[in-house]
Amino acid sequence: PVLHVEAGDRVVVETRDAFGGAIRSEADLPSAVLTMPFVNPQNGPIMVAGAEKGDVLAVHIESMAPRADHGICAMIPEFGALTGTSLTATLNEPLPEVVRIVPLDGEQVRWSERVTLPYRPHIGTLSCSPELDSVNTLTPDAHGGNMDLPDMGPGSITYLPVRSPQARLFIGDAHACQGDGEVCGTAVEHASLTTIRVDVVKAWPIAWPRLETGDLIMAIGSARPLEDAARIAYRELVLWMEADYGFDRWDAYMLLSQCGIVRLGNFVDPKYTVGAAISKRYLA
Amino acid sequence: PVLHVEAGDRVVVETRDAFGGAIRSEADLPSAVLTMPFVNPQNGPIMVAGAEKGDVLAVHIESMAPRADHGICAMIPEFGALTGTSLTATLNEPLPEVVRIVPLDGEQVRWSERVTLPYRPHIGTLSCSPELDSVNTLTPDAHGGNMDLPDMGPGSITYLPVRSPQARLFIGDAHACQGDGEVCGTAVEHASLTTIRVDVVKAWPIAWPRLETGDLIMAIGSARPLEDAARIAYRELVLWMEADYGFDRWDAYMLLSQCGIVRLGNFVDPKYTVGAAISKRYLA
Amino acid sequence: PVLHVEAGDRVVVETRDAFGGAIRSEADLPSAVLTMPFVNPQNGPIMVAGAEKGDVLAVHIESMAPRADHGICAMIPEFGALTGTSLTATLNEPLPEVVRIVPLDGEQVRWSERVTLPYRPHIGTLSCSPELDSVNTLTPDAHGGNMDLPDMGPGSITYLPVRSPQARLFIGDAHACQGDGEVCGTAVEHASLTTIRVDVVKAWPIAWPRLETGDLIMAIGSARPLEDAARIAYRELVLWMEADYGFDRWDAYMLLSQCGIVRLGNFVDPKYTVGAAISKRYLA
Amino acid sequence: PVLHVEAGDRVVVETRDAFGGAIRSEADLPSAVLTMPFVNPQNGPIMVAGAEKGDVLAVHIESMAPRADHGICAMIPEFGALTGTSLTATLNEPLPEVVRIVPLDGEQVRWSERVTLPYRPHIGTLSCSPELDSVNTLTPDAHGGNMDLPDMGPGSITYLPVRSPQARLFIGDAHACQGDGEVCGTAVEHASLTTIRVDVVKAWPIAWPRLETGDLIMAIGSARPLEDAARIAYRELVLWMEADYGFDRWDAYMLLSQCGIVRLGNFVDPKYTVGAAISKRYLA
Repeated sequence: PVLHVEAGDRVVVETRDAFGGAIRSEADLPSAVLTMPFVNPQNGPIMVAGAEKGDVLAVHIESMAPRADHGICAMIPEFGALTGTSLTATLNEPLPEVVRIVPLDGEQVRWSERVTLPYRPHIGTLSCSPELDSVNTLTPDAHGGNMDLPDMGPGSITYLPVRSPQARLFIGDAHACQGDGEVCGTAVEHASLTTIRVDVVKAWPIAWPRLETGDLIMAIGSARPLEDAARIAYRELVLWMEADYGFDRWDAYMLLSQCGIVRLGNFVDPKYTVGAAISKRYLA
Repeated sequence: PVLHVEAGDRVVVETRDAFGGAIRSEADLPSAVLTMPFVNPQNGPIMVAGAEKGDVLAVHIESMAPRADHGICAMIPEFGALTGTSLTATLNEPLPEVVRIVPLDGEQVRWSERVTLPYRPHIGTLSCSPELDSVNTLTPDAHGGNMDLPDMGPGSITYLPVRSPQARLFIGDAHACQGDGEVCGTAVEHASLTTIRVDVVKAWPIAWPRLETGDLIMAIGSARPLEDAARIAYRELVLWMEADYGFDRWDAYMLLSQCGIVRLGNFVDPKYTVGAAISKRYLA
Repeated sequence: PVLHVEAGDRVVVETRDAFGGAIRSEADLPSAVLTMPFVNPQNGPIMVAGAEKGDVLAVHIESMAPRADHGICAMIPEFGALTGTSLTATLNEPLPEVVRIVPLDGEQVRWSERVTLPYRPHIGTLSCSPELDSVNTLTPDAHGGNMDLPDMGPGSITYLPVRSPQARLFIGDAHACQGDGEVCGTAVEHASLTTIRVDVVKAWPIAWPRLETGDLIMAIGSARPLEDAARIAYRELVLWMEADYGFDRWDAYMLLSQCGIVRLGNFVDPKYTVGAAISKRYLA
Repeated sequence: PVLHVEAGDRVVVETRDAFGGAIRSEADLPSAVLTMPFVNPQNGPIMVAGAEKGDVLAVHIESMAPRADHGICAMIPEFGALTGTSLTATLNEPLPEVVRIVPLDGEQVRWSERVTLPYRPHIGTLSCSPELDSVNTLTPDAHGGNMDLPDMGPGSITYLPVRSPQARLFIGDAHACQGDGEVCGTAVEHASLTTIRVDVVKAWPIAWPRLETGDLIMAIGSARPLEDAARIAYRELVLWMEADYGFDRWDAYMLLSQCGIVRLGNFVDPKYTVGAAISKRYLA
């Protein structure tokens, strides 16, 4: 363990970029400088006193700032949504391999001469240890992991199921910004200074991660095919509304058919991630 | 044909609800009063002079208003996202069959004692005739059809590929509101007074429908599994940015990985519908 | 209608190859000589007296023989299982376009200097008219259609749901041989002389096509993703064993987990086709 | 490690049934006596001297015999192909939970009064350790694992990629018989006496497991959706024919479209398994 903390503690994390710093110029091609699957380095495990199986770790992301003057985006061979991959196996030639070094600061991401994007940081990968498996940092699943949900930024609380003693929290993979689905396979990956606060919610046996912002509550599912990720997310949200907000099950199901919000985290990782949410205004 | 119009004409359409008016009370169960697949009645065909194969029909939705004081939402056996269906075939007992009559007006949808939703009308089903097949009104595909995209409301323009002489436009399936994915299988289905204006864009051979609002441009794909719908939508958007907005292909692909917007229309119909969009601010 | 027959009649059909005869040499590339979706020509409709909605048409394939000294196999751009396609949309360059003219007779298919395959003819596309839609000849669905099941050869009986008066039978797409899944997108497509006998089974309201040989009974499902095709097929088989062979539902389900036979027809068409079967020896 | 062996050694393994012996009567319901995911116990790791990353372990299954007079089959809540599951999440009530104790010997599996099946034993789960992750025994993947392929019986050779020093072989999950797809979720699970011989093939860097019998060679893929498992298997088979049997890539691809054999291992596990094979007679 790299750190032992108490519930309620604030932790300042210096995350590395998803390439572990191995890409330093646009000439550093991923196929040359990376060794799969040893990518997407995480900070952790952070041990949280008192957390045990059946609890939930509430990870408040308080702030994020860049630790470098640039981020990196790459097209990696046989990785991404609009290409054959190792799983959607084809015989086509791969797409070109491309690296973009993207200047940025705490306000803006200067994508190109033409396009400047707002700096909208979020954490791509966040998890407590699973109970049985050890899962690589590219894969999201019921333990959390590489979910790539843009909603997981400053002001959000992520609820992670605790499955081993002291939770064993891992965090990393900061994105300066990311579109829905992370279609080319990578965001603007950057080293960040991220401040979190961790709380323990005792005896809340949730099956999948959940998230809360000032505006909404969101259940998160990760699976393939993509509709299964969406099914998990929506089922968990129905059950959450029933258990904690006093809705009848079928009323919740039919209501979400009228006002449910779906966020596509990624559809490029070994499992795809979907968030299903409802505005807090309808939960009052 | 029910109507012949010229390019630029405004048409006021009295749509019927998706149940064809057969559900009049919460005791009218779909399995008793509907005869599948004879549901989701459309208004049309509307023949548009001068439209021919290779053109695009631009359908401006100018306004929508309810034609009744209520809408209808239903849980239909083996239909919806969180149940076994005729395609995701299981041996489980079906979910309960439920009908909700939902009072509404041009401002509000009064879902329950507890929840009131804003009236956010849109058109669920919109298409020109396909070239070869005749497609039932439950299925979205490359011709458009039952896309169930909440973005298709007043102020939007939908671009439909024309594949037969005079386009043969069909429109129907007005929703008073709908959540992303239409998870229980139905929206608040209501009879509407919808005003559209149709234009013809000559010689724009698009493969799939597209949509434009004041804020964004969106490409639309419909397929199963859900990731294929998203792949189609994002590929079409990349090609659109390349053809009409001067982007390099790989620059567009990587940029959408940072700022692409995904909307899930439905994941309950025979094909699922996804829209992939980019804000117009990045197209300047 | 091209023909009116009575139940029990024998019909000799001269099918054309799936390319409609447009490919005459290895230099005739599909992208140049075919006009999609106007391919896979069918013989029909054949009207069968007395068949009506709710009945089943039993199509006995009595014999098949080649009508030419060769068949044709092609790799068509963005078509096939190991390539990006119009639905699994990618930005990769397409695979090479290749045409193979394959000498054959009623005994052998001479694939190459190195490989000779046995002539194992079967019908790729077989259907009665759907009730509502008109479906192109590339797509299999609940009506039958382009199922591409190698089991549908001489000695087999295919049971097709009748959904319109006199059934409106279509037949075509003879294959000289085909592997499971038809992985490159085409079989050895050939013009055939096919003899069928049609019977009407009154009042057998099956939802999907079924097939019988001397050895087995098979239920057929067509859908995407592929597991949904397999789910449909297995569910229909469980229900068939329960309804007609005296099995308890859960006994049938668990028994098929021990001896069920799965055949992959195709995973290249707009919907994929799977047959789920059980040996007749376990039905005695 | 439980055992250290040399290449060429014969090992006699006493496998336990997939329930770890916890089900002793038809009243022992899985939900009561099992603790997920602690099921499907494996024998291992068996360390094979000289095996290192980049090699292949060839596991010859020489013989299998039952170690008990019965096997066990179960329907487990939210597990199986024809039910909503934890991943294909639905709100339907689960199917009934059922346990069957099935008498058997080395010749026959006495399923019921009505049906007797032949004893066709095979190994359900077989793997070397993955490089990075530790994977639960329910999940098949590129390392092998819970593939549930009926072809993996006596007389077969399974080729497993070695990814860590001395291979770390695990074996278990013997089935007395199993149908294609293992549709209800379980086979006739039984304790077995299995004799294997292990060889090391140096420097054969295969990406996925492969299998060989007297009649065929088979590449194996595990993924969701099911078509991705089939794509992996067929791509690996094309590459295998190209690398080791002198076929041109496109000739192999088109030939498999005529004579490829597809076996569905399971479509119930966290990933689904497909084998794609070709008869050795076409490889001469």
